[in-house]
Amino acid sequence: MADNGESTPMEGDHAQMVTPWEVSGKEGGKIDYDKLIDQFGCQRIDSALIERVERLTGRPAHIFLRRGVFFAHRDLTAILDAYERGEKFYLYTGRGPSSEALHLGHLVPFTFTKYLQDAFKVPLVIQLTDDEKCMWKDLSVEESVRLARENAKDIIACGFDVSRTFIFTDFNFVGGKFYKNMIKIAKCVTLNKVFGIFGFNNEDHIGKVFFPTIEAAPAFSSSFPHLFDGQDNIRCLIPCAIDQDPFFRMARDVAPRIGYQKPALIESSFFPALQGESGKMSASDPNSAIYVTDSAKNIKDKVNRYAFSGGQDSIENHRKYGANLEVDIPVKYLGFFLDDDAELEHIKTEYGAGRLLTGEVKKRLIDVLTEMVERHQRVRSAVTDEMVDAFMAVRPLPHMFD
Amino acid sequence: MADNGESTPMEGDHAQMVTPWEVSGKEGGKIDYDKLIDQFGCQRIDSALIERVERLTGRPAHIFLRRGVFFAHRDLTAILDAYERGEKFYLYTGRGPSSEALHLGHLVPFTFTKYLQDAFKVPLVIQLTDDEKCMWKDLSVEESVRLARENAKDIIACGFDVSRTFIFTDFNFVGGKFYKNMIKIAKCVTLNKVFGIFGFNNEDHIGKVFFPTIEAAPAFSSSFPHLFDGQDNIRCLIPCAIDQDPFFRMARDVAPRIGYQKPALIESSFFPALQGESGKMSASDPNSAIYVTDSAKNIKDKVNRYAFSGGQDSIENHRKYGANLEVDIPVKYLGFFLDDDAELEHIKTEYGAGRLLTGEVKKRLIDVLTEMVERHQRVRSAVTDEMVDAFMAVRPLPHMFD
Repeated sequence: MADNGESTPMEGDHAQMVTPWEVSGKEGGKIDYDKLIDQFGCQRIDSALIERVERLTGRPAHIFLRRGVFFAHRDLTAILDAYERGEKFYLYTGRGPSSEALHLGHLVPFTFTKYLQDAFKVPLVIQLTDDEKCMWKDLSVEESVRLARENAKDIIACGFDVSRTFIFTDFNFVGGKFYKNMIKIAKCVTLNKVFGIFGFNNEDHIGKVFFPTIEAAPAFSSSFPHLFDGQDNIRCLIPCAIDQDPFFRMARDVAPRIGYQKPALIESSFFPALQGESGKMSASDPNSAIYVTDSAKNIKDKVNRYAFSGGQDSIENHRKYGANLEVDIPVKYLGFFLDDDAELEHIKTEYGAGRLLTGEVKKRLIDVLTEMVERHQRVRSAVTDEMVDAFMAVRPLPHMFD
Repeated sequence: MADNGESTPMEGDHAQMVTPWEVSGKEGGKIDYDKLIDQFGCQRIDSALIERVERLTGRPAHIFLRRGVFFAHRDLTAILDAYERGEKFYLYTGRGPSSEALHLGHLVPFTFTKYLQDAFKVPLVIQLTDDEKCMWKDLSVEESVRLARENAKDIIACGFDVSRTFIFTDFNFVGGKFYKNMIKIAKCVTLNKVFGIFGFNNEDHIGKVFFPTIEAAPAFSSSFPHLFDGQDNIRCLIPCAIDQDPFFRMARDVAPRIGYQKPALIESSFFPALQGESGKMSASDPNSAIYVTDSAKNIKDKVNRYAFSGGQDSIENHRKYGANLEVDIPVKYLGFFLDDDAELEHIKTEYGAGRLLTGEVKKRLIDVLTEMVERHQRVRSAVTDEMVDAFMAVRPLPHMFD
């Protein structure tokens, strides 16, 4: 997968553009998610659907769900119907390992996927597209392989259950039934089709135009005979950022033609850069994001110096007009990571009314992020190569659906 | 690989066209091989080169070499130089398993490859592109896999040495280092490039445009770690019909950019259809070719009824003008399969002078083909599934270079 949760800046005057490799709002503004839902043809997640998830799983919805971070879906209702009938499904998510360290936006789909795995007690496959990153970035095969293993450690640190989780890298796992599915998919997709879906053109190399088959294949259970031996048509639910939708639109289009169920999707909005929602989080600008490797001091400095504030330019004006919560990054980040609904509401009310100052809100955010990142670092440092090998072993999963 | 040794008919008024999937002469005529050599940029094999092969191997050149069936090459001189210095190389050939039974044209590259293997005592990899045939023809994955195994039995019946030969199907073997090479190759080849080399267009599916990486990968020894462990840059010599040249032109172009030696080639002309050199041998017309499954009666009937004759329309005219050997299929087939140079010369002289009749030449051809096909059938019937498994086992080869 391409990096999840990144928003890239607009270049010049153009319409909104969202592909797995380019995300930009219209004329440099924010992404219009309503328009995206219309354009892609997915559905918005409403409160009735969230309540149904809570009822079926017997636990409160994850904050990413009840606060609208995961806001769109395809066929989630069909997955829940099937689950209610006692039918099985599995989860599939992934990452393109292009950087040494993950930032907070990268954790969003994994944090949410862990919640889904725990709530539904289902198996999970995680694809690390080292081949994709080798082809798109100026990375050697060896460096892509190394980054995939490093990223796997951060993913494992999100708390996945090894008895239900298979992590694989394409360079290690492509072959056999997985490869057969790639070819079945490829037969159904013309160049014109991928030009339209992904924006490729004749100057692109032949690996790029073929790659969508590789990200689509894990959406079909027959690609994993060691997990689903003989159960070649188990439903799949894919939690991902909405920029990955094109891959799975293609997979859903192909599915009935090759005799498989269409994968379902649950899709998130993009995680904003510190500089604001139309800023870019980029590996080349470490100050655009909080990384899981950042120290407490890094976090404090970055939030204080770079987190775009919706507060007013003077204390007097701030007390008078209050903060603009629509553009305020500290409040947005707290919306992702501050569990306590009541406290979040309190902050928003007080900050919006000018009674809380930006510095106070940033201080709360720094505390929340520091605790979260330090916890991640503690867990991550305990992830051994043997644990990576255990998650990546091609094996049956002992607890598939119990 | 696409079917070797087939010539397809011209359609309408057009220039000569040779790609792995389409072969047609200018305005329906014969292929102009001199022009092809110019167009592709390969070299003609001359008598000095043939003599050098005989000297280095200490055995007479195969009739396919001394009679010009294998007529062109790329870097064969460099392979011989290296061999003379005691350096190693390996052979690579293949087949696209699109039909149940092979015809005589299909045997040409394998017969010649066996000679090269015996003469140079080198390892050989044989690729069966079941994935290609699944994508190009209306064949399911399962049917392509089945045909590949059936075809492997005919290939084994050509007499390859299991201690020096690794046969693989793409659906079984793609993965690991082979897949890594596919991706390295893909990165270097744009769509524009494959459009130019292979004649693809935007209506083609994404599997087709990616496929050249799969046929190129075996030309690099690092794709086979079980054979060449640690020796990632051993020279490769590819015997094939010249319609496969585009794949390896591409591979040679890419090779230095990914740190590998360019593969060398030794290339054959096309095996003519019974109906003549601009006729088509096709699976849908069993009378266009002699199959290795044909009975003695089939062979006799096909040669007598369909083999295009250069003889005159009456015995009187024939005695007077003699046969036109340029277009006579029985003489051409004898050129491929009658070992005895003196006898072949005698037939050509007598037939060309009108002293031998078409029926007499056809009778000699029927004897030669019947003996050859019956011998193939005897050997083929003794090829077991266990033998196929043995050739296809992913294993070190006990006798690599001795």
